[in-house]
Amino acid sequence: MSARAQLIGIGVGPGDPELLTLKAIRALHDTDVVAHFAKSGNASCARVIAADHLRSNVIELPLLYPVTTEIPKDSRAYCDRITAFYDGSAEAVAAHLDAQRSVAVICEGDPLFYGSYMHLHVRLAARYRTEVIAGVTGMSGCWSAIGVPIAQGDDVFTVLPGTLAEDELVRRLLDADAAAVMKLGRNLPKVRRAVARAGRLGSAIYVERGTMADAVIMRLADKSDDCAPYFAMILVAGWECRP
Amino acid sequence: MSARAQLIGIGVGPGDPELLTLKAIRALHDTDVVAHFAKSGNASCARVIAADHLRSNVIELPLLYPVTTEIPKDSRAYCDRITAFYDGSAEAVAAHLDAQRSVAVICEGDPLFYGSYMHLHVRLAARYRTEVIAGVTGMSGCWSAIGVPIAQGDDVFTVLPGTLAEDELVRRLLDADAAAVMKLGRNLPKVRRAVARAGRLGSAIYVERGTMADAVIMRLADKSDDCAPYFAMILVAGWECRP
Repeated sequence: MSARAQLIGIGVGPGDPELLTLKAIRALHDTDVVAHFAKSGNASCARVIAADHLRSNVIELPLLYPVTTEIPKDSRAYCDRITAFYDGSAEAVAAHLDAQRSVAVICEGDPLFYGSYMHLHVRLAARYRTEVIAGVTGMSGCWSAIGVPIAQGDDVFTVLPGTLAEDELVRRLLDADAAAVMKLGRNLPKVRRAVARAGRLGSAIYVERGTMADAVIMRLADKSDDCAPYFAMILVAGWECRP
Repeated sequence: MSARAQLIGIGVGPGDPELLTLKAIRALHDTDVVAHFAKSGNASCARVIAADHLRSNVIELPLLYPVTTEIPKDSRAYCDRITAFYDGSAEAVAAHLDAQRSVAVICEGDPLFYGSYMHLHVRLAARYRTEVIAGVTGMSGCWSAIGVPIAQGDDVFTVLPGTLAEDELVRRLLDADAAAVMKLGRNLPKVRRAVARAGRLGSAIYVERGTMADAVIMRLADKSDDCAPYFAMILVAGWECRP
């Protein structure tokens, strides 16, 4: 029986349900419990993506963030609340594992690449058997949707959080052949200034919901308003046409 | 009829055939021609991964590199031969497209992320309808296989080709929270020295064929020989346990 007590992080890809892997689908069919993170009051994006593959009698375990962007991330209050949330989530998952149930945590994109699953993994991997099923990342989904070769040959490719200071973004954009800037949201005006100062405004592309039917794709230079969802991103391709 | 003339770049993922996406499989079932890159005399890795999903009557178009690592990459001879090869490959694909056949180019990992497909895409995208199907990258496959949370929160993550000079690798490793160093092969001793000089030898992990049954996974500090395949990689995780 204890063979079932396994924690599985499942990447469900960037949004298009067809970008699920065979391995993810098999694991979803086999699991006793499906856990998913969401902001309190919102549907889990990962659950929407994977919905067609959840068994009707599967046990669902929603893990609802008590706070996301309402409190500054570097504040003590944020750190305390989010730590308590991850601790409590890990214990909720552990209770199912202790009852010999397998628990699959579904994650947008790839579980170990900027994903919430990591907070459960580091808390539970020493105590339980774990497996991680890689997924297509949001950034791969975006550059594929727009058909932009992002990096080639000896290019250096860098992922930058839009939360970095403007000067730091400029410095790092100048030092990279190709880049993806994530976590836009309220950081958009600052990131756009940094991209311009680094001389990359002409080629940078703004992408929102890249693999979905309602995707928004435009040159960053043409994005004149300051409104962007947190998960929008900016892509700066490193590769022109060579050889 | 001309609706069929489409070029499709298909990411088949890092190696495990179960990491193919539903979208890749559907496209493989629908296509008239399947093209794949390989070194002359070798089997195409992408073809091995996708083998179960090729129709028995599909037309195959192998695209065989005339040269890979035998000539220095920065030499005029290499550049001339490889450019002629990509030009010829693009024309071979175009001949099928002109005959109103759909052509799927299967690619290990993700087509637009350091993939050979890009060389066809830039030559043909202006003339033909194209679609790119994102895949799980080799690096996602590797950090998932070893269960290492690679990047989180405000981490800066950088992909470094092992072909860079040692001092440049050191500088960039010191400047990144997390990194993947690709294209090891004969660059391994240099990359290992650079990782050590950047103070990351203790946590760096060496991964070879990460998602395959015969994977080799070890601490880089324990990798004492200088033998590594070109597609082996080194992962340096950015994230310890926080919050």
